[in-house]
Amino acid sequence: MKEAKSCEASRVTMTELVLPNDTNTLNNLMGGRLMHWMDIVSAIAAQKHSNNIVVTASVDNISFAQPIQLGDVVTLKAFVTRAFSSSMEVYIEVMAENIPAGESERTNSAFFTFVAVDKKGKPKKVVELIPESEKEIELFNGALRRRQLRLVLAKRMKPSDAEEVKSLFMD
Amino acid sequence: MKEAKSCEASRVTMTELVLPNDTNTLNNLMGGRLMHWMDIVSAIAAQKHSNNIVVTASVDNISFAQPIQLGDVVTLKAFVTRAFSSSMEVYIEVMAENIPAGESERTNSAFFTFVAVDKKGKPKKVVELIPESEKEIELFNGALRRRQLRLVLAKRMKPSDAEEVKSLFMD
Amino acid sequence: MKEAKSCEASRVTMTELVLPNDTNTLNNLMGGRLMHWMDIVSAIAAQKHSNNIVVTASVDNISFAQPIQLGDVVTLKAFVTRAFSSSMEVYIEVMAENIPAGESERTNSAFFTFVAVDKKGKPKKVVELIPESEKEIELFNGALRRRQLRLVLAKRMKPSDAEEVKSLFMD
Amino acid sequence: MKEAKSCEASRVTMTELVLPNDTNTLNNLMGGRLMHWMDIVSAIAAQKHSNNIVVTASVDNISFAQPIQLGDVVTLKAFVTRAFSSSMEVYIEVMAENIPAGESERTNSAFFTFVAVDKKGKPKKVVELIPESEKEIELFNGALRRRQLRLVLAKRMKPSDAEEVKSLFMD
Amino acid sequence: MKEAKSCEASRVTMTELVLPNDTNTLNNLMGGRLMHWMDIVSAIAAQKHSNNIVVTASVDNISFAQPIQLGDVVTLKAFVTRAFSSSMEVYIEVMAENIPAGESERTNSAFFTFVAVDKKGKPKKVVELIPESEKEIELFNGALRRRQLRLVLAKRMKPSDAEEVKSLFMD
Amino acid sequence: MKEAKSCEASRVTMTELVLPNDTNTLNNLMGGRLMHWMDIVSAIAAQKHSNNIVVTASVDNISFAQPIQLGDVVTLKAFVTRAFSSSMEVYIEVMAENIPAGESERTNSAFFTFVAVDKKGKPKKVVELIPESEKEIELFNGALRRRQLRLVLAKRMKPSDAEEVKSLFMD
Repeated sequence: MKEAKSCEASRVTMTELVLPNDTNTLNNLMGGRLMHWMDIVSAIAAQKHSNNIVVTASVDNISFAQPIQLGDVVTLKAFVTRAFSSSMEVYIEVMAENIPAGESERTNSAFFTFVAVDKKGKPKKVVELIPESEKEIELFNGALRRRQLRLVLAKRMKPSDAEEVKSLFMD
Repeated sequence: MKEAKSCEASRVTMTELVLPNDTNTLNNLMGGRLMHWMDIVSAIAAQKHSNNIVVTASVDNISFAQPIQLGDVVTLKAFVTRAFSSSMEVYIEVMAENIPAGESERTNSAFFTFVAVDKKGKPKKVVELIPESEKEIELFNGALRRRQLRLVLAKRMKPSDAEEVKSLFMD
Repeated sequence: MKEAKSCEASRVTMTELVLPNDTNTLNNLMGGRLMHWMDIVSAIAAQKHSNNIVVTASVDNISFAQPIQLGDVVTLKAFVTRAFSSSMEVYIEVMAENIPAGESERTNSAFFTFVAVDKKGKPKKVVELIPESEKEIELFNGALRRRQLRLVLAKRMKPSDAEEVKSLFMD
Repeated sequence: MKEAKSCEASRVTMTELVLPNDTNTLNNLMGGRLMHWMDIVSAIAAQKHSNNIVVTASVDNISFAQPIQLGDVVTLKAFVTRAFSSSMEVYIEVMAENIPAGESERTNSAFFTFVAVDKKGKPKKVVELIPESEKEIELFNGALRRRQLRLVLAKRMKPSDAEEVKSLFMD
Repeated sequence: MKEAKSCEASRVTMTELVLPNDTNTLNNLMGGRLMHWMDIVSAIAAQKHSNNIVVTASVDNISFAQPIQLGDVVTLKAFVTRAFSSSMEVYIEVMAENIPAGESERTNSAFFTFVAVDKKGKPKKVVELIPESEKEIELFNGALRRRQLRLVLAKRMKPSDAEEVKSLFMD
Repeated sequence: MKEAKSCEASRVTMTELVLPNDTNTLNNLMGGRLMHWMDIVSAIAAQKHSNNIVVTASVDNISFAQPIQLGDVVTLKAFVTRAFSSSMEVYIEVMAENIPAGESERTNSAFFTFVAVDKKGKPKKVVELIPESEKEIELFNGALRRRQLRLVLAKRMKPSDAEEVKSLFMD
């Protein structure tokens, strides 16, 4: 087994131009197209951490507060926030720019999880992730709570066992 | 304002064939492509309920447990489960079939929310939804709890105020 | 050989949103794109009847009387109307809706035929089809005449031998 | 009104490479994709004859006898065969080549009809077509019969009035 | 080894309709899409000359002087101008037409080079090309100079050894 | 007129996954697809420098020495190297990675030029570029020579006047 890796080692930047077929009747980027891009950029981050083929395991709640317009440049930045046995959580930040208008906005963030698999689709172990910056450590620490919430929502953990999530609602 | 509508009135079925460009190195449907289809089918359901243009507001946690193969037929069924002031929650069920092999499997479910908007993107009121079958009533009742969870996760509600979600973790 | 099947067993519904790249200079859906969708939905119906890989054998005359607009929701419904030795005739109905405007119209219908084949492309026998409703029986009965017309138009039958078609023009 | 035009004036050649997403599970070009290409090449031919925007009015029976393979080069040649008041019939011939294997085959032919329209979609008159070669004259003469058959199949002419078609079946 | 071939033997014509997704914010065809089409049409020409699989080796300087509009018909004509040991130079001419407006313009020309390869990607010998018309002979003769320039620009030949190019700048 | 900008201000990173439809019969990325991506990433860089709409003016000679495989991750990095009156030269570096295999390779570089235009397509002045690092200064200095070569190749400058290019071939 190789050694642990930093967040830095899995960072990926992806840039897309919003074309007519990506938009709805209001000329806004469709949410589904954005999630498609999020899936690709985060899969590449998970590949980089694991040096392995990966498959999407889950996506956490995403909200779409700001419309993104036709012709905007969309920048997606992703990196692995925590590695579990054979799975990885990836954090994605999305920024939209109308460059001629000089406008730029952070529009979304999301968490996707991936599982490293062999060619037959069987899970494979991945190396540990060691967070470094303050923000990376915060994301690393929150990963356990998000993981419990995922398991509860997928009905694979009883709510009463989700200690991390419970503490969130109790104060 | 028109009267209330049933779930039936917004039901949509969409069928897609998994083509090479929809797949990853393992010849499995990429999660991002599936979410793209989910977004389109559920937007149509929300259009049908509101008779209005709609924009994606959020997507709840989705898990991808079963791989879907190249050449499979994917059927997505969607309907509105509850209408709030100008927003709607839509439930989507996904089934994948390898028809020549006679195999069929329910692979995913998801909740998307949409907001009805006018041509300038300003929210518009939508008619109420009245659930009828047992399953529809269960989904309707759960909608409040899912909505609180969305607001908490989007940091627009304090966890301690999310009464419906709290009760889930307390027993 | 498995037993006969009903029309019901092969029914497929497909829903598509008309996007910018699907349209011509008048913002109308291009006929070629609609035929592409018809081919996919009817191939799935033929797969369902035969539980087999299928290839398109022919398409009958289609007319495009009503323009379908950018942003419309197009619903295609298909089912097998009659099975011959290794071929199947599929009937497709197309409906277009401008949901915000509350407009809906049946725009086209078409007949496609498919052949069930093995992995080397060699024809394979398919099960019989038993029509049930009045409409299904009418389509089943008309299938022989349409088949003769296809053979005549493909120059694989002499017009004078096409008894079913001849009777149509004689009275 | 401009003068009459020859078939030559509307001739168009289109060449396409069969890519993975154009093919079915057998690695054969899907019929729907081929019809999509046929629609584009024949619309351009009708534009050239009418110097006008055109919309697809109908497609005649097409049969798909020869499979076309992934990687093949598909050549579509189209020209207008006859002009009616505001509509035009276009003939399309399709050839598929496996160039490295030195194989080439004429795989399909088809007739599409188009209507010349103004920006509001209202039909506009088109110039006459004068056929020149023997083959062009034969196609020009057959156009009346194919037109009657189209009208009968679209239920816009009584079979008993379709004199040209009747004569085909009577001898 | 087969005999020499003429330019005629590799001529290919490709026709494309400029669709919304091919255009930028000004509704002009994006340069990158045009180069994509140029690559396909010239690869087919090189396939025809070599009766072999080919891979793109280089593209020469292209300038984009004339904007091409949404809805225009783009015609690309390509043929091999000279064959070297296992590589071929292909010349491409691009014409854009706004058919309803009766406008047509030669917008670009380009030179692409290809290498004939076997299934493992190893270069294979190709037959000689014999130019016939005056224009073909001129292109054939210029091919050596363009080849030296390519080698210099790719840093695979010293500028001082590029006799053909040098003579161009000396007088 | 705003002040001068650094190369840094226009840097863009784009990441693409090579999908089946991007590849030829050898499962290698087609050159035309890569150029399409190069055009988008460099147009965004030119937009960033000029804060304006831009159109592609030219592309310099590109060579494709290394095949890029299906499933590879392609990273394109672009920045403006020099601004002229209303045009900009952009440098693009392409890297391909087979992440599971741990292989990574710099495969191509290219120069594209863009013109900043207003909504009617009329050229607009752009701010100056001030190079900083050694590499940026080298690219800045070479830009004049590349510009002369472009003008000579586009037949808009006499070879004998291209002093910068001449000196390259003289020593």
